[in-house]
Amino acid sequence: MKVCMGFALLLGLIAGFLTTIAYVPEVIKVFNTKDTKGISLLWLFTLLTGALLWFYYGVLISSIPVISANGVSALLIMLLIILKIKYK
Amino acid sequence: MKVCMGFALLLGLIAGFLTTIAYVPEVIKVFNTKDTKGISLLWLFTLLTGALLWFYYGVLISSIPVISANGVSALLIMLLIILKIKYK
Repeated sequence: MKVCMGFALLLGLIAGFLTTIAYVPEVIKVFNTKDTKGISLLWLFTLLTGALLWFYYGVLISSIPVISANGVSALLIMLLIILKIKYK
Repeated sequence: MKVCMGFALLLGLIAGFLTTIAYVPEVIKVFNTKDTKGISLLWLFTLLTGALLWFYYGVLISSIPVISANGVSALLIMLLIILKIKYK
């Protein structure tokens, strides 16, 4: 398939921005309330494993959107894991 | 970069499976409790837009893991939006 890679790159970066900022309200909520009862560690570790595998997949297929979105997501999920352990 | 595409495909599919099943507990919880107060429509529509853009990005770069993971995620998010509107 012929693709304008500049367009695909832009589209992927916007997609990654939207699905990554979805974590931010959760991080802010946990920072403010120090309440992490609603978040399970199993769920966080499932998401973290998924994000890290996506990151590696992004490296293998040389996709900047997949690498950047899942790199940032993995960092935000690690932050949630640290807060979950700290505030439990 | 030389890549064994079979390995990348498998890795991407596992990554997609992990980040997609992360939505399932939320869907089950909403089905059981009919309580959608904790979920905002703005957040759901942000995620849905992100998943649909990822889906289109996957088509542009011909990535089966990106297409399948975000196709299923988009369906689960649409289900949450329907439940959110139904139970509000």
